Amino acid sequence: MALLFRNLRVHQIFGANTDVGKTILTSGLVRASAAKKIRVFYLKPVSTGPLQDADDEHVKRYAGLHGDLVNAHCLYRFDEPVSPHLAANMAADRRGTGNVVVPTDEAFTTSIASYIRKCASGLTERAHMYVETAGGVHSPTLSGTTQLDSYRPLFLPTVLVGDSRLGGISSTISAYESLLLRGYSVESIVLFKDEYYRNWEYLESYFAEHGVRVTAVAPPPPREADPSQDFIATEDYYRKIASDDGGAGGLVGVIEYLDSKHDGRIKELETMPRRTLDTVWWPFVQHGLVKHEGDVNVIDSAWGDHFTVFTGHRPSIPPSAVEPSSLLESQFDSSASWWTQALGHAHPALALAAARAAGRYGHVMYPQATHAPALRLAERLVNDGPGKGWASRAFISDNGSTGMEIALKMALRVASKRFGFTPQEQKKVGVLGLKGSYHGDTIGAMDACEEGVYTCEWHDAKGYWFEPPSVGINNGRAFVDVPSAVAHTKKKIEGEPLSWIYDVGARLDTLLATAYRQHIDSTLEKLAKGGAPPFGALVLEPLVLGAGGMVFVDPLFQRLLIDAARARGLPVVFDEVFAGLWRLGLHSAGPLLGAHPDVSVHAKVLTGGLVPLAVTLATEALLHGHSYTAYAVGCEVANETLDRLERLASGDAWNSARAAWQAGGGEEANDGTKENRAAVWSLWSPQFVDMLSRLDIIDRVMTLGTVLAFKVADNHAGYQSHSAQALLKTLGDAASESGRDVTSAPGGGPFSIHFRTLGDVAYFMTSLNTPSTTIRAVEDRVWAVLGR
Amino acid sequence: MALLFRNLRVHQIFGANTDVGKTILTSGLVRASAAKKIRVFYLKPVSTGPLQDADDEHVKRYAGLHGDLVNAHCLYRFDEPVSPHLAANMAADRRGTGNVVVPTDEAFTTSIASYIRKCASGLTERAHMYVETAGGVHSPTLSGTTQLDSYRPLFLPTVLVGDSRLGGISSTISAYESLLLRGYSVESIVLFKDEYYRNWEYLESYFAEHGVRVTAVAPPPPREADPSQDFIATEDYYRKIASDDGGAGGLVGVIEYLDSKHDGRIKELETMPRRTLDTVWWPFVQHGLVKHEGDVNVIDSAWGDHFTVFTGHRPSIPPSAVEPSSLLESQFDSSASWWTQALGHAHPALALAAARAAGRYGHVMYPQATHAPALRLAERLVNDGPGKGWASRAFISDNGSTGMEIALKMALRVASKRFGFTPQEQKKVGVLGLKGSYHGDTIGAMDACEEGVYTCEWHDAKGYWFEPPSVGINNGRAFVDVPSAVAHTKKKIEGEPLSWIYDVGARLDTLLATAYRQHIDSTLEKLAKGGAPPFGALVLEPLVLGAGGMVFVDPLFQRLLIDAARARGLPVVFDEVFAGLWRLGLHSAGPLLGAHPDVSVHAKVLTGGLVPLAVTLATEALLHGHSYTAYAVGCEVANETLDRLERLASGDAWNSARAAWQAGGGEEANDGTKENRAAVWSLWSPQFVDMLSRLDIIDRVMTLGTVLAFKVADNHAGYQSHSAQALLKTLGDAASESGRDVTSAPGGGPFSIHFRTLGDVAYFMTSLNTPSTTIRAVEDRVWAVLGR
Repeated sequence: MALLFRNLRVHQIFGANTDVGKTILTSGLVRASAAKKIRVFYLKPVSTGPLQDADDEHVKRYAGLHGDLVNAHCLYRFDEPVSPHLAANMAADRRGTGNVVVPTDEAFTTSIASYIRKCASGLTERAHMYVETAGGVHSPTLSGTTQLDSYRPLFLPTVLVGDSRLGGISSTISAYESLLLRGYSVESIVLFKDEYYRNWEYLESYFAEHGVRVTAVAPPPPREADPSQDFIATEDYYRKIASDDGGAGGLVGVIEYLDSKHDGRIKELETMPRRTLDTVWWPFVQHGLVKHEGDVNVIDSAWGDHFTVFTGHRPSIPPSAVEPSSLLESQFDSSASWWTQALGHAHPALALAAARAAGRYGHVMYPQATHAPALRLAERLVNDGPGKGWASRAFISDNGSTGMEIALKMALRVASKRFGFTPQEQKKVGVLGLKGSYHGDTIGAMDACEEGVYTCEWHDAKGYWFEPPSVGINNGRAFVDVPSAVAHTKKKIEGEPLSWIYDVGARLDTLLATAYRQHIDSTLEKLAKGGAPPFGALVLEPLVLGAGGMVFVDPLFQRLLIDAARARGLPVVFDEVFAGLWRLGLHSAGPLLGAHPDVSVHAKVLTGGLVPLAVTLATEALLHGHSYTAYAVGCEVANETLDRLERLASGDAWNSARAAWQAGGGEEANDGTKENRAAVWSLWSPQFVDMLSRLDIIDRVMTLGTVLAFKVADNHAGYQSHSAQALLKTLGDAASESGRDVTSAPGGGPFSIHFRTLGDVAYFMTSLNTPSTTIRAVEDRVWAVLGR
Repeated sequence: MALLFRNLRVHQIFGANTDVGKTILTSGLVRASAAKKIRVFYLKPVSTGPLQDADDEHVKRYAGLHGDLVNAHCLYRFDEPVSPHLAANMAADRRGTGNVVVPTDEAFTTSIASYIRKCASGLTERAHMYVETAGGVHSPTLSGTTQLDSYRPLFLPTVLVGDSRLGGISSTISAYESLLLRGYSVESIVLFKDEYYRNWEYLESYFAEHGVRVTAVAPPPPREADPSQDFIATEDYYRKIASDDGGAGGLVGVIEYLDSKHDGRIKELETMPRRTLDTVWWPFVQHGLVKHEGDVNVIDSAWGDHFTVFTGHRPSIPPSAVEPSSLLESQFDSSASWWTQALGHAHPALALAAARAAGRYGHVMYPQATHAPALRLAERLVNDGPGKGWASRAFISDNGSTGMEIALKMALRVASKRFGFTPQEQKKVGVLGLKGSYHGDTIGAMDACEEGVYTCEWHDAKGYWFEPPSVGINNGRAFVDVPSAVAHTKKKIEGEPLSWIYDVGARLDTLLATAYRQHIDSTLEKLAKGGAPPFGALVLEPLVLGAGGMVFVDPLFQRLLIDAARARGLPVVFDEVFAGLWRLGLHSAGPLLGAHPDVSVHAKVLTGGLVPLAVTLATEALLHGHSYTAYAVGCEVANETLDRLERLASGDAWNSARAAWQAGGGEEANDGTKENRAAVWSLWSPQFVDMLSRLDIIDRVMTLGTVLAFKVADNHAGYQSHSAQALLKTLGDAASESGRDVTSAPGGGPFSIHFRTLGDVAYFMTSLNTPSTTIRAVEDRVWAVLGR
């Protein structure tokens, strides 16, 4: 987890390359701090080569340090002067593999974080710490991950030691760009003042453009043959560059600057809540209910499944045993940032994809044009993606709501031509759908839904919405909840295995199917007789009504609605913005429902949760335009995301989860085809779901893929009720240990959970690559709140 | 301009650092080509140090090359073994500044492009060329720009020579990332096989993930003291790495791979038109009219104001005198990619901004949260941007149409509360606006406009739209064109200086103002009496109706509409999506109109033309949500853009343009305040505008800021007429010389013009930083077509 302490200012020191003077300049920074009478910590997480012993005193001597104010420490030491990953391998070879345990990235950052926390605890005055990395920014660390990816969970502010040699301008700028690609804040660049190549001159003006301060420091004197002479020369050198009497220049200026950046950062974080309350409007927030600074979630950065949030402005934080003074907290993003995250925050591959498309195209206009990222995306979605087998064309736009408006225009145009609607009918034509549907917040998308809590001026709902039969798990048993309008006698059909519920083909011959068909037909007949405007499309969120309360709809009912629409010549629109592209463990809902749509819309997961993009798949065309249609950055990020989802889809993590669900209670019955059993699975554990479903306070649980939702047993149901929020509020409190695993936040340490509720429904959602250890830890935390 | 030839495969060779063996490996590649009996060109654009003479034979010897199939050339040579920019400076110092002319980036790439074109001409068989750069990827070239930015207009496919030394893993990966940030396609990485550090092993598996082939080549033998022995050893080494008998490995494998990438790239470009026609829907395109592959604009990359488009699929390209065989053409993007470009395509600062936000946050959900890029953007727009003086809050969404829907919801909510509309009135409440308005393509945005060519199902126009008086220049004189409904007697008021027309304050007391007021008041009275639904807002595109035909509206009429709306308690919405943020040379239209809106919407230029983002500024709140609201990448790119716009706003280029307009005909009159004269200016030259306005075939011309629009004199007016398209169609033909300046495309060479028309209106639009030389060249091209 990222760390920030009021009294301990920590910087990581990266090198533009190996051998650029990182240790000398870090040592100089340490001495400069000590010269200002500031306690200072020098941490060398990995040392290869020169350091003879990992003992603190040896580390201090190795870095040429002395004095009471100075502490030094090394975590992993190897003799070989090679890259850490090779050194670890060589050491393993030499000593026999068993003796050298190469730490995982998580263990590595956890050990660094522990040391930093230990040093921070109990400080009453400002202290400094410099964490010196090994080699260049991208040198592999012990596990083989390159350093700047490996250190990323700690998100420490950075000093870059530039390269003063021939070629050093290039390596310094490239190293800086690699650091930026990981989001690091490079607060200072320090390098030797080589009078021949004069790189510092160039770099000073280059980085002035980027707002980064460059400091050139005199190079060290040549090594003296006589050790005592050498010691004197060295001390003299350090005195020159690191003491206070050298005026404004030198390293004292750097540490003062770093102090001011540190103070500035904390001040910025402290003022953000007030400034935000004063200046922004949030989506979907009743601003009257959010008046206190403590209610504002200040996100300083994010990584993987976690936000890193500032806690300094929150009133009365209960003191945490583990980390008394950090101003940042790891917070599990359990709504997957409104259902967008697929590969975790700040994934370097997605950042690179965005960068390379930005660098190659910027945005290039799309009408009557083509470019590789857009064409590749269109082809893969139409031919191998959710459009496989039915779609012929892709319309790429820039958010899910817009994608749905395009879908509606397409479908209604087809119906209008097919049925010859009059101009007046064209204005009034309705859609068929389900109560609780949500398709976005632009007026056209809203008009395809009932009026309700999201209603506003101009919202003029056009259509009819059936009350949906829903499915869930209660007391360990799956059930179908049939609305009384459909079946007066048997409201809950219990005891089915979950996978059987999704075996729509097998269920077409059941009595329930007959009841559904009769209900649909008689309703449509009644509507036709009542003189309602004509219908032009069936518009469905397959499998789950997301914003409508995470209601998992009986797929059999949706299938029969599709059949009924088709029989009447109505185009079928799937809004898969939320549920598609593996969010529910399925590529697309079509195969499961046994029915393809005529138009489908995809967004959110599409770009892995980085930038907005939507694709509408279908077979007919229309006149619609947004200037950023098919923008290259979005398309390239989508392509990179889909590449990675394909790999995940056949990877070990999902296979284990699938196996766990297939081995689960009742699933061994002969009911359902093998394909359907394989399609019904979740990243949440069947045991946990089973336990939740047996709690009295929970009305029902449901899960598919990354989504876990449960409804709180509550008399005051509905979206505007806040029963789920009230029940779970301690989850959002300051970080506390998860019980099972205190190191489950990235980089180690405890975490809190950022969750969203929809009235009496709470939901938790992971990325598609969230580690199972993280999910188990979240389950533990939820259980600790609910199960007690 | 980017270059691609069927018979000449060209690669640029970049080094991960200096001294990594770039010349040896390039020489090896040249020898490998020659060994396969392929003519091969070695180009060393800049040489510093070892090369004794720039004569081709010396260059050949310097690179250890010989044989008839091999050609070698150097463009700029310096003695000093330092960075090119320093070498150029030192040479200038030594010889006296006058003797050494440091080429600009444009001259530099133009000279490279000329050499490449010369080599390509007349080739009947496949040949190869390697362009060896100097130092590392970011080493400054002669002008001081770093190499990968300086070479970018040529957009050559790239071979990266990796670093096999200690630290070389890091510098190789960082160099690769810097290349990607500029959009380069890195087709191969080659490095020495150092058996101790074994960087190649790590890099092979690292880059396999990125789809880049890594080849490790035996390092050269140590230098022999005896020159003839050394020659033998060297030749022996090259024979080993570069001849065909070494089996699959070595450099022959690399050149075969590069050949296959070259062929694959051309094949991909050739098939893209057909595949695009088969798989995508474009926005705003009547697909029935676009059936031929030649109608598809295949954009291979873009840079600055130009696309680079493939021409190989176009039927009957007239042979160009300058460049007979290139498959790529420079194309001026004269609609600024649908009005989005502000700083040119693929601006490295915007790519970096996107990358650093992606690396720090990914997307983090916004409701009840805050993060630095969003808060900074909100604050600067509210406090110092177009919201200055009136707005209190910013709602950040993800495209202009959505931003407008949010604005409409806000405004109508306010009116609804103010006037106590019934639920039925809330559905029907209308807006006041102008005929020809366009606010986006979602249904809500459409409902604020008249029904017309964009109409579709559900479009139910709500409101009343006045016919707008417009302004323009004809026969060198500015005029106001007053619709007959307003003034029956005097349709055209001529002879005003353009700046006076925009001095709204001064015009409030004119007779025309009185006529406008009477027309507005009587119309509103009539509407009220007629029993129309109530009005809830005035919705305007200030100054210009963009999609409605680039109609410049008389600002006095807009001001009086605002006054009338205010008098009636109606909120005023400015749709500044297209026209705001300096597109028309003005930060915002409010000060010029002398009236602020209650709600305003900003997009397009906001992100410099990279990714979609919109901001709605206002003072009231509502419930609306998109999951990507305020996504960090968009906000960060917007902040970077606004930083740069601020610098442009006070820079020399705009000041020169302003001065040219103030010195222009009639502008010296005492009419108008100084501020208003300064606000009315254009990047297009007043002389060119004057000349155009005097052509018989042109009905009127108008320009402000970056926009130049003219209406073709035509009996068949309107959007669906294509008279402007027909008149200008030769502009879009294959590149031809501009007459004035054949090197005006980036990297030199001719260019074609990609332009959009709106029926009988043609418009040309620059970025906000388009060089004046480019604009002059476009003016020449337009004049060559129209003036003849």
